[in-house]
Amino acid sequence: MANQTAAAKTAITPRRDEDFPEWYQQVVRAAEMAESSDVRGCMVIRPWGYGIWENMQRQLDAMFKATGHRNAYFPLFIPLSYFEREAAHVEGFAKECAVVTHTRLEVNAEGKMVPGSPLTEPLVVRPTSETIIGASYAKWVQSYRDLPILINQWANVVRWEMRPRVFLRTTEFLWQEGHTVHETEAEARAETKQMLDVYETFVRDHLAIPVFSGEKSESERFPGAVQTLCLEAMVQDRKAIQAGTSHFLGQNFSRASGIQFQTRTGTQEFGWTTSWGMSTRLIGAVIMAHADDDGLVLPPRISPIHVVILPITTKEETRARVLEAAEKLAAELRAQTYFGAPLEIEVDRRDLGGGVKNWEWIKKGVPLRVELGPRDLESGTVAVSRRDQPMKTKEFLPVAELVSRAVGLLDSIQLNLLERAKQFRDTHTRVIDSKEEFYDFFTPKNPSKPEIHGGFARAHWNGSREVEERIKNDLKVTIRCIPFDDPTRPQEAGTCPFSGEPSPRRVVWAKSY
Amino acid sequence: MANQTAAAKTAITPRRDEDFPEWYQQVVRAAEMAESSDVRGCMVIRPWGYGIWENMQRQLDAMFKATGHRNAYFPLFIPLSYFEREAAHVEGFAKECAVVTHTRLEVNAEGKMVPGSPLTEPLVVRPTSETIIGASYAKWVQSYRDLPILINQWANVVRWEMRPRVFLRTTEFLWQEGHTVHETEAEARAETKQMLDVYETFVRDHLAIPVFSGEKSESERFPGAVQTLCLEAMVQDRKAIQAGTSHFLGQNFSRASGIQFQTRTGTQEFGWTTSWGMSTRLIGAVIMAHADDDGLVLPPRISPIHVVILPITTKEETRARVLEAAEKLAAELRAQTYFGAPLEIEVDRRDLGGGVKNWEWIKKGVPLRVELGPRDLESGTVAVSRRDQPMKTKEFLPVAELVSRAVGLLDSIQLNLLERAKQFRDTHTRVIDSKEEFYDFFTPKNPSKPEIHGGFARAHWNGSREVEERIKNDLKVTIRCIPFDDPTRPQEAGTCPFSGEPSPRRVVWAKSY
Repeated sequence: MANQTAAAKTAITPRRDEDFPEWYQQVVRAAEMAESSDVRGCMVIRPWGYGIWENMQRQLDAMFKATGHRNAYFPLFIPLSYFEREAAHVEGFAKECAVVTHTRLEVNAEGKMVPGSPLTEPLVVRPTSETIIGASYAKWVQSYRDLPILINQWANVVRWEMRPRVFLRTTEFLWQEGHTVHETEAEARAETKQMLDVYETFVRDHLAIPVFSGEKSESERFPGAVQTLCLEAMVQDRKAIQAGTSHFLGQNFSRASGIQFQTRTGTQEFGWTTSWGMSTRLIGAVIMAHADDDGLVLPPRISPIHVVILPITTKEETRARVLEAAEKLAAELRAQTYFGAPLEIEVDRRDLGGGVKNWEWIKKGVPLRVELGPRDLESGTVAVSRRDQPMKTKEFLPVAELVSRAVGLLDSIQLNLLERAKQFRDTHTRVIDSKEEFYDFFTPKNPSKPEIHGGFARAHWNGSREVEERIKNDLKVTIRCIPFDDPTRPQEAGTCPFSGEPSPRRVVWAKSY
Repeated sequence: MANQTAAAKTAITPRRDEDFPEWYQQVVRAAEMAESSDVRGCMVIRPWGYGIWENMQRQLDAMFKATGHRNAYFPLFIPLSYFEREAAHVEGFAKECAVVTHTRLEVNAEGKMVPGSPLTEPLVVRPTSETIIGASYAKWVQSYRDLPILINQWANVVRWEMRPRVFLRTTEFLWQEGHTVHETEAEARAETKQMLDVYETFVRDHLAIPVFSGEKSESERFPGAVQTLCLEAMVQDRKAIQAGTSHFLGQNFSRASGIQFQTRTGTQEFGWTTSWGMSTRLIGAVIMAHADDDGLVLPPRISPIHVVILPITTKEETRARVLEAAEKLAAELRAQTYFGAPLEIEVDRRDLGGGVKNWEWIKKGVPLRVELGPRDLESGTVAVSRRDQPMKTKEFLPVAELVSRAVGLLDSIQLNLLERAKQFRDTHTRVIDSKEEFYDFFTPKNPSKPEIHGGFARAHWNGSREVEERIKNDLKVTIRCIPFDDPTRPQEAGTCPFSGEPSPRRVVWAKSY
């Protein structure tokens, strides 16, 4: 709490440019979003972090339903034998599995409590659900008339994490996973792309994060997939973070699970499947994309609270009237609709100093703060601060004008955050044509502050895995995505600067989370 | 599908009075609500069942938020050492735990995939979260100023089940668990009761199930609780099913977890905690309370679809006009608000016989079915069937009248289901004063159809555990709840018919799920 007295300092120590990873942890802590638990790699998502997740869930869920999907729920545990059915899949996830081997707890001869009855077949705690959901689909699908199956699941999954980091890499995380089955390859490919488009709309318009979309190279594909489509966002240390993936699985998983149907011509065929997912990892992306040296900055659409009202009640004689005016303002704001629901308003009535309260809400990233004191009762105005502007910038507005403009202000903050993130990304995205420039771009200039450098490089690539691996080994840089063909901006062919061989298009390279 | 041709038959075989347990399974299957998976005791909740759960979640969640609670999320895994901290608690759950002992999968010498790295400390998959949540609360609570903590979690939990039954008893189930900490005993007791009241309102007004509320006897208490409050509902085989519990935990868990705070007078005290939960088990209660021999019957408030429109398109020449009229009606109905959200309308355009389609929606329990055929285009009327009335009962209504009355009809069905369930329960609740009558009441009269007999017995009890155990051994009957003191209906003292000793009040006895 020392910070709020020294105006020159920032609320978060260290600053982004001093120690980006530590700044991230401190933002999460200061906003009371989440914390580590004593279970290695498992986080506790606190109410402020979970409130953001609830908003993301509700908004994405509506988009899934609007595209014809329904929710269902499948078992947490996957029999080991199911999991082995798709060879690339089990290989991809084997190192990350948590395994249930026993039921019951017993007291042993030494009086110590230990696992009791061994299971005949070990159970894997789902790291993803293709195989367990496939087993159900195999029962449900008999004929082309049963298709398509368009189902989504909201669930927790477990992937054992050796170097955990809150939201970004956690052993347990929350996500949604869509799993669909289609009659034809074309339909399944269209679904794969449709869901990537849904994610792109959500990430851009709700999270205010611009993305590059495209396809993964073979080495970065989901284990078992024929094609993985992805969104890649840039955060403020110029690294890439994956913001949603959509997989075309071909017939690999339907073969493994036996999802077979009678076609319109009476033959038997395996279904064409897709899967697509988005997780609490995206909360980490939101933090790293928008937060500043004073803490979290939330896109209004996902903020649990849109406007916090801070009544200044230091004078005893005006206290009751100030509180009354604050509650009246809150009621008028709550009657406004924002994005299909009432505005969420908090009146902070706590008996704490105005500075302390103000800083708490700054650190939590609430889009609009409104101060209301005894003098405002006379003038009928309030002081409004936007979280996307410097902490001391205030606009004095008549109360009625604030009420009528509140939604407009939120929209303006939402757009400004997107615009700011877009400018940042474009500033740090470079077209590179020589190996030397590429290696230089991805080499830290200041060895004492190694975190922030580079960005996205748009460079040619000969399509070989060998080049990818060499660059990964040399620089920890990978291909984040191979952009889609865009008829309005034809791909530019060229020469791969690493091999000298021809390249059909530029791809996006970056260091990544 | 043979059933729809034989009008005398029921859609579900067997009927309730023939084989209640099998009838239950067949209702679940016919409505496509859920099914068993190959993972013993773990169910797959299909979209129709999950849609019901989503409605229950949304409505309960709003009630939790209206009483000041916020959602958060805590780890799936509990270190064994945490779990052991409360002795009664670990004893109560030890037999039901699933235990993670390894991470990674490896290929062994025989080429078989097996669990890889053993964990130094086994992890219990949460059967309930008091101990893992307590570990966080211990960090968050320092002073009385940090209290109360009012948090709820929506999560999956695992309790190994030897005799699984879909929804009613499953190894994995979905639930919510509220966990609160308070400054005083009185406040924690008030919270415990408040949340029971929230459940009672929800179960009565949303699920249309009347309940008896009260306290559990010591032997039926939650492991580690000081007091367990409960709701008990009667279903159609006259057994009791628990429909929500709320626990006053005293300082037991705060002592175990170290949740300590500085009081207003500067002393250190342990917090007073509560927990309360409701699960997918309640879906089983809804089925057994309301379904009939034609399948599921859904209380409108939780039905995923309120009105299904069945266009009769057998004649090619009127097909387009019938479909157009059906879509127009659907749009008008969707513009109606029911319980704060638009009415959910399905137009079943599939090219199947009208009878087949009608029966599907009957079996799914949709509250209102509307048939619209070529002749209705002329007359401007439609045929409306209520799921709470016999299948062949139809009311012919002008389209405009249906639109204006739809919400009223749903309200009427909702109330009728509650009234029906209340009458059923009251018919089968008996005041009993002799041991002989009590034993007779709980003895099947027809040995070939043992399931349906008895009901709730309101009988005196001397308060001893010994009497409870004798009756449990003799009849499998237990005390479901000890009713609360009600100042408007004073408790009637009397004599315990089993011991001849004095009893301060009647308690509710029943066989139960």
